[in-house]
Amino acid sequence: MAEAVDYKVIGTSPVRPDGVDKVTGRAQYGADMNLPNMIYGKVLRSPHAHARIKSVDLSKALAMPGVYAAVSGADFPQAQHGEIGGEGGGDVADLAKNIMARDKVLYHGHAVAAVAARSVQLAEAALEAIDVSYEPLPPVLDLDAAMAVDATLLDENCFTKNLPEKPDKPSNIAAVMQLARGDVEAGFADADVIVEGEYRIPMAHQGYIEPHACTASVNEGGQATVWCCTQGHFEFRAMASKVLNMNIADLKFIASEIGGGFGGKTVLYLEPLAILLSQKSHRPVKMTMTREEVFRATGPTSGTHCKVKVGAKKDGTLTAATAWLAYEAGAFAGAPMGPGAMSIFAPYRLDNFHIEALDVLVNKPKVAAYRAPGAPQSMHAMECALDDLARELGMDPIDLRMKNAAEEGTQAPYGPKFPAIGFKACLEAAKQHPHYTRPIPEGAGRGVAAGFWFNVGMQSSAEVHINENGTVTVVEGNPDIGGSRASMCLMAAETLGVTYEQVRTLIGDTESTGFSNVTGGSRTTFATGMAVVQACEDIIAQCKARAAATWGVDEDQVEWEDGQAVPAPGVNADVKPLSLADIAANAARTGGPLLGRASLNAQGAGASFAVNIADVKVDRDTGKVDVLSYTAIQDAGKAIHPAYVEGQMQGGAAQGIGWALNEEYIFNTDGVMENAGFLDYRIPVASDLPMIDTQIIEVPNPSHPYGVRGVGETPIVAPLAVIANAVRAATGLRINDLPFSPPRVLEALDNA
Amino acid sequence: MAEAVDYKVIGTSPVRPDGVDKVTGRAQYGADMNLPNMIYGKVLRSPHAHARIKSVDLSKALAMPGVYAAVSGADFPQAQHGEIGGEGGGDVADLAKNIMARDKVLYHGHAVAAVAARSVQLAEAALEAIDVSYEPLPPVLDLDAAMAVDATLLDENCFTKNLPEKPDKPSNIAAVMQLARGDVEAGFADADVIVEGEYRIPMAHQGYIEPHACTASVNEGGQATVWCCTQGHFEFRAMASKVLNMNIADLKFIASEIGGGFGGKTVLYLEPLAILLSQKSHRPVKMTMTREEVFRATGPTSGTHCKVKVGAKKDGTLTAATAWLAYEAGAFAGAPMGPGAMSIFAPYRLDNFHIEALDVLVNKPKVAAYRAPGAPQSMHAMECALDDLARELGMDPIDLRMKNAAEEGTQAPYGPKFPAIGFKACLEAAKQHPHYTRPIPEGAGRGVAAGFWFNVGMQSSAEVHINENGTVTVVEGNPDIGGSRASMCLMAAETLGVTYEQVRTLIGDTESTGFSNVTGGSRTTFATGMAVVQACEDIIAQCKARAAATWGVDEDQVEWEDGQAVPAPGVNADVKPLSLADIAANAARTGGPLLGRASLNAQGAGASFAVNIADVKVDRDTGKVDVLSYTAIQDAGKAIHPAYVEGQMQGGAAQGIGWALNEEYIFNTDGVMENAGFLDYRIPVASDLPMIDTQIIEVPNPSHPYGVRGVGETPIVAPLAVIANAVRAATGLRINDLPFSPPRVLEALDNA
Repeated sequence: MAEAVDYKVIGTSPVRPDGVDKVTGRAQYGADMNLPNMIYGKVLRSPHAHARIKSVDLSKALAMPGVYAAVSGADFPQAQHGEIGGEGGGDVADLAKNIMARDKVLYHGHAVAAVAARSVQLAEAALEAIDVSYEPLPPVLDLDAAMAVDATLLDENCFTKNLPEKPDKPSNIAAVMQLARGDVEAGFADADVIVEGEYRIPMAHQGYIEPHACTASVNEGGQATVWCCTQGHFEFRAMASKVLNMNIADLKFIASEIGGGFGGKTVLYLEPLAILLSQKSHRPVKMTMTREEVFRATGPTSGTHCKVKVGAKKDGTLTAATAWLAYEAGAFAGAPMGPGAMSIFAPYRLDNFHIEALDVLVNKPKVAAYRAPGAPQSMHAMECALDDLARELGMDPIDLRMKNAAEEGTQAPYGPKFPAIGFKACLEAAKQHPHYTRPIPEGAGRGVAAGFWFNVGMQSSAEVHINENGTVTVVEGNPDIGGSRASMCLMAAETLGVTYEQVRTLIGDTESTGFSNVTGGSRTTFATGMAVVQACEDIIAQCKARAAATWGVDEDQVEWEDGQAVPAPGVNADVKPLSLADIAANAARTGGPLLGRASLNAQGAGASFAVNIADVKVDRDTGKVDVLSYTAIQDAGKAIHPAYVEGQMQGGAAQGIGWALNEEYIFNTDGVMENAGFLDYRIPVASDLPMIDTQIIEVPNPSHPYGVRGVGETPIVAPLAVIANAVRAATGLRINDLPFSPPRVLEALDNA
Repeated sequence: MAEAVDYKVIGTSPVRPDGVDKVTGRAQYGADMNLPNMIYGKVLRSPHAHARIKSVDLSKALAMPGVYAAVSGADFPQAQHGEIGGEGGGDVADLAKNIMARDKVLYHGHAVAAVAARSVQLAEAALEAIDVSYEPLPPVLDLDAAMAVDATLLDENCFTKNLPEKPDKPSNIAAVMQLARGDVEAGFADADVIVEGEYRIPMAHQGYIEPHACTASVNEGGQATVWCCTQGHFEFRAMASKVLNMNIADLKFIASEIGGGFGGKTVLYLEPLAILLSQKSHRPVKMTMTREEVFRATGPTSGTHCKVKVGAKKDGTLTAATAWLAYEAGAFAGAPMGPGAMSIFAPYRLDNFHIEALDVLVNKPKVAAYRAPGAPQSMHAMECALDDLARELGMDPIDLRMKNAAEEGTQAPYGPKFPAIGFKACLEAAKQHPHYTRPIPEGAGRGVAAGFWFNVGMQSSAEVHINENGTVTVVEGNPDIGGSRASMCLMAAETLGVTYEQVRTLIGDTESTGFSNVTGGSRTTFATGMAVVQACEDIIAQCKARAAATWGVDEDQVEWEDGQAVPAPGVNADVKPLSLADIAANAARTGGPLLGRASLNAQGAGASFAVNIADVKVDRDTGKVDVLSYTAIQDAGKAIHPAYVEGQMQGGAAQGIGWALNEEYIFNTDGVMENAGFLDYRIPVASDLPMIDTQIIEVPNPSHPYGVRGVGETPIVAPLAVIANAVRAATGLRINDLPFSPPRVLEALDNA
């Protein structure tokens, strides 16, 4: 592990800059923008999971007094195929058709038309006046049905991608991905023990508190301003520009505060509808989803079917592994099978492996990113298999993982060699953790599992303005979901040598600051942080130049130390150091305001590993699983604001536990989700969870000036397998499918 | 005159970017911000022009249901003396006491207390419940009374500044300024003709359409956001910080659209009251002035008393001149006597002169800047005297001015030598102008006069963001009063080599962009324009570097031509030129978003000269003066957007004509303004004015990349004397005092 660096403000956990406004209710979320003459938009959604649209007649709705506009697919420009770009990925034409169906509806809840009216109630009444004529088709509702030879097709033009040759007929399998190394057959032949497992996980939703909401206002010059909750207003602008065929310069997106996203708010749903309705009505249009709409019509994560086979020597050395990973894409291609495949074996040294992953269309909502998209599902399979393997080998499960753990220099399954990583450090910490060394409570079971996420870099911009009194304003373009305002302030303060309190961070809108990709991929503190540090370095260079001019010395005779310009060692200048405040106060006389900027496409995102431990107890009468204790250990690289990092770890564990225990989309045979509300889609509440203990490991990322790795996604990866392995330990039963809801556990107990 | 440069977009007059929203009513002005839970503030104003405040009791007002907060001088921090800085200048403690009286009220309308309540009506009722006990003092209402030996003093601690020695007793003369050169006595001895004149001009108001308005919201963390109409939100922030003793970092000012300012919106009035009331009420507070409040309690320009003496040889050569210029400051020091003194002789070569100017306290509202502050009054005196001199010499008034006109190399009365200036070019143009060469209409009189303004530089910042599709967003911090968004777009388009339509300019708030001084001093197109050009050059440098990297050549082997990176001449590279759009589309792969910035304290503002011509007719029965035709000729340096420049020239002429003909503050003997409304304070309406003809002269300012001089202030300088000289020509009478309202003209005619 690299040596600890002494920082002055980085690593402290000061008060959150957005805390006061959030606690007192002043923070403005997606639904909180109100404008004069504003009207309200609502969406008509398909009652069929699969149908051809024969006609949409808006005329009766438009004739209603107080209804100002109505649109259907015909009002949109022809959707062009092309890459969306950014983290969301996918195809623009698919995005456009997901926002508003054209010839077909592909899931129950798919948008078919939208209206804007004087009130929400009137808009809802107008929806009922829209006549849509459908030709229902059989819905394709699970992976087996979708991949069946005679399956009904969602898209007659879908030919499986990435096959050696273009297939001769269309399929619901949109794409296949393969990763392989070495000689799998020889590897298995070498093994003393082989374990296999097959695991199914249903669709689950991110469960963010705030439903999607926006207000759009288009002026008579055609320029649109959109206020919305989003993980990336620049990417929303880009997507809206493509979907609506509008000039980017005519679109301004302002990111509101955001009440959770977890990947789900990287996708455009309402905004283009609100823009079109505003164009037609000449009024601002507000649109908000109900919780039911969020469940039925936004992007959950894929339901999956994974098969894993792992071979090992008696000493635990892995000799070979294979994985077959099928991901539900929902209505349009784009399941996270890629990262799922890339993650599954990433924590381990493996000379022989083969992975096949599939992106499969089904008549369900198009999936979206959800924290470490694809990895929890695939790694659940591997980590359960390793648990079984440890049991067969009679090895401690942490020792088995340590035996095979990837480290600096190990070649990742997806290609590059790891630089310094913290997996072994996490395993060591877990092995020594009081949670792991203390006895397992009577009747309980203990599980462990590893988590992994790549983290990404991508594009970020930052500007730094020095106020006349030496206070600092950082402007960046990433919505603050997990505390990035605080982390930017800390990194800027550390770089400039000022206090945290002197720095404020603003999330600029698309007009007022430079382009940044989404807040996603755990990239913000890493990449945008890097831009902020560079923009501060731009300021420091200017300060040094001004001090040099003031002192009449060369620029290279000035250094920046502890927030002050000082003469470089050996420079004989009888001068008083100049602080940032001194230079700011004198800026008018030395060349004008101090203004720094940086933009980059960040390289070198650091992979982040985690090890989680859980003790669970299973009620043999009801099948209810209680989590008695839970510990999350994770390499943050460097924790800029440790309290926020712990929050990410705790939040990821809570979501993972919920996913493991109860969360699932339940569809009836018509493809209608039967539990589209928080009463029936059961996310964990406070009483369902123990205090999540955390331990932050710090193996600095050599590619970031302060060693930052992303921390937001890895925390959700391990919990699924941890809970499964703990239930296995508590019950002696390997239950392969999630969630461990009371009926499923009870059934397994009864069968045993 | 310098040679004309061929520009592609500079010099065109495309559609105004803010036009559509202003015409359709969507533009948001100072009073247009509404926030949830917002309440309304009103100000209690002094009924006395001069009085000691014995007590202010807010308790009855505070006890009224629906009244949420009330403040008086006691609620403000102790006002600290110190420079305000920026264009406004003056003393912070004076500003604070002008915003809210402490121990004394110094004019009728001076703020004494303020309340915030559920409605404007309730707030007004609450004002009546405030008990203020006054000890009235005799009001000092004109310059003569103020300067009398036994004058009542406004401020017992006011000792005239800039005297050779500190005076032994206080005075209402706050400061004296002297400018001199050569031997005045010898100069007059050399003269063949000497003319003298003494001129009085009463206070006049800028007459902007939009009354002052703001909405302030202070959160529970003490951070204030203020939306207001202002000429400079950064300077408002700085002033509010000083007046309220708040950290600049806790203040965010957002400039609304502005319905006119002309210098009057460089001063803080309501904003600190709204902040205090919001702090106390925990709610957003909106405050708007009535028109009456605007007249009684904001800053008009000084009433003046000027004496001028000019000597000349028979051939017209000026031999000496003296001026004594007394300016009403209003209640606190800070009349524009400095620029008045510096301007009066600036258009002329003068070896012998002496100027004395006085800043005099009177019990009237504290004056504020008004277009070319101080110059119209002092130059009215000189230009009338020159008219009389031409008459005595039998010379054409333009020839007289040409004989003595300042040119490149002439030392200005205030020190430096002029670089290239356009006064002679304006005089030549006037002499040849059809307006001047055509016969004077029967019964009418024709007047000419010159105008001058320094223009200033000061601090500006600009940021330029290139969107993914190659469109350009310019962000700067100067409220757009006279078309600066258009001029910034034009200069950015010209520099980058793109079309006007590809560029959009945003006025950033104090958080989202770098510091800029006020929109004032005719500095914006000059100084902020220079920052925009430099920020675009920052973009071009980045584009060249990226093209070089793409092509594998050195950066100095790439040039920027017509909006494209091309290989430098002689560089042998088989490559396709890369446009801004090409480079933007590929930015992610070449280092991230394109983001330019510049900040500066602009030097080299170019003096701007004007010559105006007017024909007037005087009704001998009523004394009414009709302006038959009016021509404004002005050196713009380079007119970036000629239609806007013409608008500035026409607007300045209209205001100057109004000031010359009718506008004046009429006070009764108690110091109460008797005409505080647009029915009685008569600004010109469309039917009062002829079409103002314009001719733009272009003598480029060598200190600006596109030759810009400021254009916003010079237009108001000449009209006062032009009208006076035309009336002199029409009537044969030299009427020394303004305005030429029917009663005054009639009285002069009757006396003659």
